[in-house]
Formats: sequence, C-alpha cells, structure tokens
Amino acid sequence: MASATETVSGWLNALGSALKAGDADKAADLFQEEGFWRDIVGFTWNIKTMEGRDQIREMIAAVMADAKPDEWKIDGEASEADGVTEAWLTFESGTGRGKGHIRLMDGKAWTFLTALQELKGHEEHKGPTRDQGVSHGAHKHRQTWLESRQQEEAELGYKEQPYCVIIGGGQGGIALGARLRRLGVATIILEKNERPGDSWRKRYKSLCLHDPVWYDHLPYLPFPDHWPVFAPKDKIGDWLESYTKIMELNYWTASECTSARYDEDAGEWIVEVDRDGEKVTLRPKQLVLATGMSGVPNIPTLEGQDRFKGEQMHSSRFGAAADYTGKKVVVIGSNNSAHDICAALWENDADVTMLQRSSTHIAKSDTLMDLALGALYSEQALKNGITTDMADLIFASLPYKILPGLQVPVYEEMARRDKDLYDRLEKAGFLLDFGDDGSGLFLKYLRRGSGYYIDVGASDLVANGDIKLVSGKQVTALTEDAVVLEDGTEIPADLVVYATGYGSMNGWAAKLISQEVADKVGKCWGLGSDTRKDPGPWEGELRNMWKPTQQEALWFHGGNLHQSRHYSLPLALQIKAREAGIPTPVYGLAPVYHLG
Amino acid sequence: MASATETVSGWLNALGSALKAGDADKAADLFQEEGFWRDIVGFTWNIKTMEGRDQIREMIAAVMADAKPDEWKIDGEASEADGVTEAWLTFESGTGRGKGHIRLMDGKAWTFLTALQELKGHEEHKGPTRDQGVSHGAHKHRQTWLESRQQEEAELGYKEQPYCVIIGGGQGGIALGARLRRLGVATIILEKNERPGDSWRKRYKSLCLHDPVWYDHLPYLPFPDHWPVFAPKDKIGDWLESYTKIMELNYWTASECTSARYDEDAGEWIVEVDRDGEKVTLRPKQLVLATGMSGVPNIPTLEGQDRFKGEQMHSSRFGAAADYTGKKVVVIGSNNSAHDICAALWENDADVTMLQRSSTHIAKSDTLMDLALGALYSEQALKNGITTDMADLIFASLPYKILPGLQVPVYEEMARRDKDLYDRLEKAGFLLDFGDDGSGLFLKYLRRGSGYYIDVGASDLVANGDIKLVSGKQVTALTEDAVVLEDGTEIPADLVVYATGYGSMNGWAAKLISQEVADKVGKCWGLGSDTRKDPGPWEGELRNMWKPTQQEALWFHGGNLHQSRHYSLPLALQIKAREAGIPTPVYGLAPVYHLG
Repeated sequence: MASATETVSGWLNALGSALKAGDADKAADLFQEEGFWRDIVGFTWNIKTMEGRDQIREMIAAVMADAKPDEWKIDGEASEADGVTEAWLTFESGTGRGKGHIRLMDGKAWTFLTALQELKGHEEHKGPTRDQGVSHGAHKHRQTWLESRQQEEAELGYKEQPYCVIIGGGQGGIALGARLRRLGVATIILEKNERPGDSWRKRYKSLCLHDPVWYDHLPYLPFPDHWPVFAPKDKIGDWLESYTKIMELNYWTASECTSARYDEDAGEWIVEVDRDGEKVTLRPKQLVLATGMSGVPNIPTLEGQDRFKGEQMHSSRFGAAADYTGKKVVVIGSNNSAHDICAALWENDADVTMLQRSSTHIAKSDTLMDLALGALYSEQALKNGITTDMADLIFASLPYKILPGLQVPVYEEMARRDKDLYDRLEKAGFLLDFGDDGSGLFLKYLRRGSGYYIDVGASDLVANGDIKLVSGKQVTALTEDAVVLEDGTEIPADLVVYATGYGSMNGWAAKLISQEVADKVGKCWGLGSDTRKDPGPWEGELRNMWKPTQQEALWFHGGNLHQSRHYSLPLALQIKAREAGIPTPVYGLAPVYHLG
Repeated sequence: MASATETVSGWLNALGSALKAGDADKAADLFQEEGFWRDIVGFTWNIKTMEGRDQIREMIAAVMADAKPDEWKIDGEASEADGVTEAWLTFESGTGRGKGHIRLMDGKAWTFLTALQELKGHEEHKGPTRDQGVSHGAHKHRQTWLESRQQEEAELGYKEQPYCVIIGGGQGGIALGARLRRLGVATIILEKNERPGDSWRKRYKSLCLHDPVWYDHLPYLPFPDHWPVFAPKDKIGDWLESYTKIMELNYWTASECTSARYDEDAGEWIVEVDRDGEKVTLRPKQLVLATGMSGVPNIPTLEGQDRFKGEQMHSSRFGAAADYTGKKVVVIGSNNSAHDICAALWENDADVTMLQRSSTHIAKSDTLMDLALGALYSEQALKNGITTDMADLIFASLPYKILPGLQVPVYEEMARRDKDLYDRLEKAGFLLDFGDDGSGLFLKYLRRGSGYYIDVGASDLVANGDIKLVSGKQVTALTEDAVVLEDGTEIPADLVVYATGYGSMNGWAAKLISQEVADKVGKCWGLGSDTRKDPGPWEGELRNMWKPTQQEALWFHGGNLHQSRHYSLPLALQIKAREAGIPTPVYGLAPVYHLG
C-alpha cells in the first residue's frame, strides 16, 4: 500500500500531467464531486473558491492555458487521520511561485488550496538576497541611507507619484504598506491621526485586544516572546508606530483624503489630500481603502436627541470612564464595545444600564482561545511546529462553505462548558444566541462583522445585575434627561453611549469617491450566507475584500490583525503584478447583488 | 562501541556523580591535563576560565558544595569529527539552570562551557508564562497599561529608587536594560544625547556597521529578514530608538551623570544626574558603566594646536565630509575610523592625507565574513541550523587561550586570498601587520580594541594614492596651516582629524566616580596576552567585563553588538541574583595588575 506521502505525490503528478495536457475533465475528476479548490491569486488573479467538480473544471478550462501551472511538489510528509490525508505543497505558475494545502479523501481532493507567495523576478529581498546596506568600494558623492530616505520622503507625492495610495493607516494599511515596501512598490499611506497607532490609542481607555498575541503578529517582525496575550490598546498603538518606522513606510500623518476620482483615460486616480493643512493632489495607479471595518460610525436617529441635556457619543469616541463616576449612563448596544464600556463604567462607579436591542452571542475569552483558536494560534500550536504562516494557510485552506459545519460542534461544546454563565445571563434577561445556525463567533464575524461579545469579564456584571440590563426593547426617544423605551419606560441618563456599530466599508467609497462607485462595487464583507445581516446569494468569499472589484484599480483591505497580516500578501502581489506589467486576467470577478 | 551521544552522556553522568560525591579529584580527572572549563556565572558567580586540571580541581573543591550542580544532560545528539566529540548540554545548580557545551578528546574534556541561563524562581515571563496583558474580570478602579507605565516613568528615580542604574544608553546599555526589564529589575538608563540611537547618528555620515547583520541582533527582537547586511548608522540609531520604546525601558535622555559615589554603609550608590537641566540624585544598589569602548576620546597634545587656524576635531565629532570639498585634510590615525573618514572625504573631493603612525591590520570585509564569521553568523549558518543563540554559545565555548592558535590559519588564508591588495598597500608604503602573533583582527579587538581596519573600500584608495599616505612618521606639531612631522615635513591642512582612538573604560570610572575607584578596579578590557597594548600577566578573560570587579556593586558593560547581546545575559543574571537576595559567592575575583 502506498504511503500517505506517496499518495499525495501521485495525486499531484496526476494533476500536473492533466493540467499540462490541457485536460480539464481529467484534472477535475481528481476532485471529489463536492470538492473545493480555493485559489488565492495562484491562477485566477482573484480570491475565489471553486465549489464542486463543475466549477473546478470550468476554472481549469478558462485559466490554465495562460497560467501555465507547473512544478507541483509535496512539501514535507503527508499525514493521515480519520480517512483524510493532508499535505503541504508548492507549485509554480508562469509568473509566480505558490504554496498550497490538500486534503484527500478516498484518493480524491476534498479541499485544495493554492496561494501565490511571490512573483518571479520580483521576489522580496530577504535572507540571502537582502541588500548590502552599504555599497563597498569608493563612490564619489555617494548618498547615505538617511539622505535617500529623506529625499524619498520629500519627493514622493510631489516630484514623484506613488504607484499606490492606501487610505487608512491602521493595522491594515500598515501591514499592506510593509508588504508593498518589501516589493518595491512606491506607496503612500494616508492617516488622519497625528501618529501611527492613534486609531487604537484614541479608543476607550480600558480597551485591550480581544484576540490573543499568537493571532496578532504583523508580517516580518513578530512580537517578542514576552508580549502579553491580550495587548492593551496603547501598547499596540506604540507597536504600530515603531513598526511603521522600522519598515520605512511613507506614512503621512494628519493627512485626510478629501476626495478621490478615477481618471479612466489616464488610468489613474486623482486623490485630493489635506496634509496637515496643505492641499496635495496624488495620482496613483492603484487606490486601496483600508479604512477598516470600524469605518463610518452608525448613530441611530432618535426623537429628542437635540433636547437631551446630557452627553451623547458614539462608542468610538468614548474615552475615560473615570469622568463618569457617580453619573447615570445608558449604553445602547450589547456587542463588544458596549460590554467593554459598561464594565469600565462600572469599575469607575458609574450607574450603568445596557440596552440590548437584539440577541447577542457571548463567548468566554478563555474558552474561545482553547476551543476555537488553540489548535492553530497558541503556545501549544507553536510547540507542535505550527508557525504563524502555517496556521494562516491552514485557516485559509478551509472553504467558507464548510466552516459552519466545522464550527457548530465547537460552539456546542462551548455551550456545555460555560452552561453556568449562559444560564445566569438568561436568568438576568439577556438575549443569547450562537448565530442563526449555531456556528458561533467566527462565522458571525465573517458574515456581518458584529453580533457578539468576547467575554473578558463584563458578562458576570450583567448576570449579577452590577450592569443593569434592559433587553428586547427598542429605544424610541430621548427626553431632556432620560432615554425612552417603546413601552414608555424612561431611564434617567447623564450620558448616552451609542455602541451601535459601524457602516459597511462601502460607505467610505461613497464618502471619498462617489455614490456611483460605491454602488458599482456594492456591499463589502459578508459571504452571502442568507443569515441575519448577510443576505444571499452565496458568494463563497468575503465580498470585495483583497481582490479585484467592479471598479478598476480600487481595492478594499481590512479586518482583524490576522486578516491584515495574511491577506495583505495576496493583495500586495496583485498590486505588484500590475506595477510590473504582468498580465493579470481576472477569472470570475464577483457580480454585485447588494448596494452598500 | 559507544555512540558519540552515549560517550558524552556517560561522561556527564561521571561528572555529575563525582561532583555529587564531592570528589574534586575524580571530577577533575575527567578533563584533559590541559583541558579548560569556562564558567559564565554557572557556578563561580564569575566569568572565569579554569585552565588545566589543577585549576579545575581547585575551583570544584571551592565552589561545588555550595553550588549544588545537578541534572547534567546532553541536549540533542553529539557529533564527532577529527577525533573531537562535541555536544550541547543542560545543567542545574541550586539556584539556576544553564546551558553548556563540551568537546571531548580521547574520552576526556578538552573544552567545557557552563553558562547560566536563568535563576530558579526568577524566570523571564515569556512564551507560555507571558503576562496576560489584561486582567480578565471586573476590577474597581483598575489601572491601564498606559497609566502604569506613566506612573512608573513619573515615580522611578523620584518616589521610588531604581535597583540598578546604567550609565550610557548605547547598544550595551539598551541590551542590558532589556534583559533587566524582562527580569523585573527596576532600572534607569542614563543617556546624554537627546534620543536613543544618537550615539550612532552623531558619528560621521558615511558610517555603516562593520559587522554583518547576523552578528548584530539585539536580544528578544531580531532584525526582520530584509535588514541590510551592513546597516547604516542612522538606521541602527532608529532601530535602537524603536527597541527602547518597544521594550519599555526607563531611558532618561539628555541625562548626564555628573558624579557617582559608593556609600559603603548604606550599600548603595549616590549618583548625581543632570536630567535635561534638572538635578536628580539616584540611589541604586548597582551601577553599570556602559559608556562603551568608545569612551573618552584620545586626543594627542601637540605643540602649536593653539595657533592652528583651521579646524581640529576628534574622529568621534567628524560629521559631514561634504563640508570639506576642495579642502586639505590630514587624518591622523589608520584604523577603522581613519579609513572611513578618509574615504568619505575623498568621495566628496577633499584633498586627504592619512598619517599612519604605526602598523595596521587590514582585513577585507568579504573575506572576513567568509573566513572568520561565516561558520557561525551567516545565512549559511542559519541554514545549517545554527541560531544566533547557538552561535553565541559556540563562540563562548572556545577559551581565549586557544583562540590565537585557531585564528592564525584563518589569517594565513586571508593573506593568501587577498595577497594582491596587501602587495599593493605595501608598495604604497602602508605598514601592515596581522597582530603580534599573526592571529588577526578578532584577537586585536579582544586584546586592545584597536589596530585594524575592516576594509570596505578605503584600502584601494590608499593603495592607488587617491588617499595620500604618510607612514611611519610621528606628528610633532601644528603650524598655522599645516601638520609638521618629525622629519620637518609640513603637510598643509585646513582640517586635522584625530582618529586616535579612545581611552580605556576605566577612564569613565575616574571621571565619574574617582581616581581611587578607577585604580582599585584597574584596567578594563584585554586578556593579558603580553602583546602590544595588552600587557601580561595572562588573565584568561576580558578584564573587568560583565563580571564582579574589585569595587563592590560596580560593573562594566560594552563592546560590539554581539557582545552587548550575549554578555548582557550573564551580567543581568548577576544583578538579578543580588536583587533577589540569592547568595553570590564570587570565586576567583581577578586581581588588578594594571591601572587604567
């Protein structure tokens, strides 16, 4: 009997031969009828999951003659468990080199991932190919590193135009900027705040990352190994600032894009910038909106907001809870920010009421780390030899279609393990859910980017009444000094916090470019799962994220630190390919079903 | 026949048993008659090389009853080549855990290294034991990370006294500060410049590191893998600044120590500081001089220096070569700085003359990297599985006594390989040497910290006359506009650069503390090799570096980036042990043979 490694090698050989022979049928027959091929810019110049043999066949027939796949090789040894044979692989296309992952069942591929890693002739200068730093020998009038950097900073955007402009200098813009820097793409990042990291620093005082350190590394420069599990916001802010400097990003602070327009004829964007009071016009070929999922704040319009005599603010503007000691605060909302802000207020002796308008998914942080992330992102995972890069690719190798099925048991176990907390919350009147189909937090995040709280302590306060709870009732109005509910109840308030989330990234396109372009590219984020806030039809990938959109040369980048790290690579490679003049025929550009 | 691994394991068992039984004779007999045991704070609370069986026996008899060595274990597999069996090992003492390295010949130890890695009960919080960052749950009036940091910065040195003060915030002070931070020792670093990294930034414009990147990592946060081989000075400056911030060091900029005095009764130092104009008195228990090997500049006293109408400066103050285009410059000296400055001046069209007063060792950078560093610090070494930590320990495992013998063949090969350059230099009148015994650059560095140039291009300029050379003649005076040599020759000069090196670190003790203390601790650096500028008797370790001195609670730290990284660990552990109240009986405190 063939070993697992031989089985995979044999399969890869068969795939390679079929593709070389241009035999799409034969190649597709190597997959299960319901098998998946997820391609991250390996061959499709798109991020796309082909679901089922028919879609796979169609893709192969459409792209492989041009893409020229080759050099399929297993990387390391295959492993076998529960009837599934798994292995890493490497491959090449005519223009690039990639890594992949395969899961075989009964000799046929169940899941298959191909992810571009580098473009031939445009590899990052690292390790053995790193720069010398100094050019040995003697050279008249040589420029030092500092002089070159200063010249670049002075001239880019003025004497020379950047190839790419990234709007938004949070973790997303920074990670992408670092990738593009290493690829030699002239890029400017626009950030409205005064310092890199301010988008974290300016949030509420008690904020810490809800994701653990192993999930949060940026590319190239991992956190040192004493970095705390859940980094406080100011520490992350400082890290981003240092990172920006170390990676030599052209990062314009206090710089706001006031408008952007695509000049079809010139094939470039006209980006108007207010750079700390100075008007600058940039003309990049590519424009990236990295304004984050926390984009335009949603604030509900309520009757009486103008007559309310206390303070009102969106959660994004909430700062020091200590300013409200002894005050009455109503927090509208029941997701992450709402819980964090309520807890901080309670810790500072405010009288705080949470208004829960609809059901919320609660996942205890420790349980989540253990059940949902631990296998890939933890000390244990590192000990098992799973590096961050490997974890990212394993994560990426699971098609979105099968994720809910894999996640449901995780959250069933969570419900069992934390039954006591859930019982107490329900007894306190808290409306709980685990997602429409019980698939829990990560799917909620992918589908709608909201609807949950990762419990780091506030749920106990809700359960025991320290944070007062009003649930299932809508707010209808404000009076001079109270919040009014639909049943007429009035809740006295000195401060109202709208922890009511953020609009779609699409809102930024409308705001900065035009409603027309926003409508053309349509809704961002979400999978088309036909669950709450994620209408169908099924798309199979996150809408518009990190891949070509219906608007030429416009890209969306964002998400958590994990996504900013992982998906900045394929996005950077797509931009680099265009800069380098490599043909990038996009296969299966997603149609638009929903406006923003 | 026993395998190499079994042989080493057997040897370690025998050593462990003999030590446990208190049998110093039996333990010492496991070493070759001429064998070495180098201990870096493993058992001696000192950095000390026992040379020969007698010294080893003596040390064992003196320290092991208290030190309680235990748990000797081979780490990985042993290897065998040319009759030498090598292996890594781990061990414990009563108070700590260590790593070691052994080379066996004919079943007996030729070299044996024991290096303390951590103190029991005082381990660094890293990996699985890292801090949580946020304390889950709800806590009234909790302090955020930022608030704690701000409080610490405001109170340390005022309301609370640091346990340790480090004078000098260059790479040495920073690396040690990071180690102490991770060990939880309250420390203040005093730096006279405005920003971390300024000690690099303020040097001459064209300066780049002469050591390659693999040799230069700081602890905990390695450079990203695109970092240039030879980093330019401003880039290193920026890195040090980011590093200081990321590691949360209490780093006082614009802060000069004006005096320091040891209060024997209180067992603490009284350190007077000018902190940006404010007088502050610090009372640490431990004081570290990390003022660097580039300490007090040496400037020769010459007749006529007062009447010279041009500019005169020490090489440490030389800035922009472009300021001297078309000017006549005389550079006195022929080591690294002299060459770099001459080349920068030539590149900027100055008329430059180098005055070589005595012979100099020239080593081409590429050859040096290849022959001397490549096996331990290079991409190839990394590929061979030799991490930076392993390289440091292998380096440390070679007793200083045997280094010259190992280095001579390296430099013989260098002389062969670069014969053409050496011939051309000699023809141009350049006085060459390879060290008194032909052992080359690294031994010169260890013995006297000077006497060489790592050639990155200037030697060609000297050889072909672009840099004018006057060699073997002493300077006797300056006139209004020229430098006068002993033979009466006058060399016209608009600028005279004294590239005449730096005084011993001991000079800092004299300057900051007192001549009495400086004399008490004696000369720093050097091995006692009885070669030029390194008088005997033989010491076997660098004088006073990173180990206890004759002055209680006074330490010296410095050297290149490699040494700053590697020796900051044993130094930090010695300081931590004292802070923690662990008994630290010092074995074999070195006597003083030479004043500063």
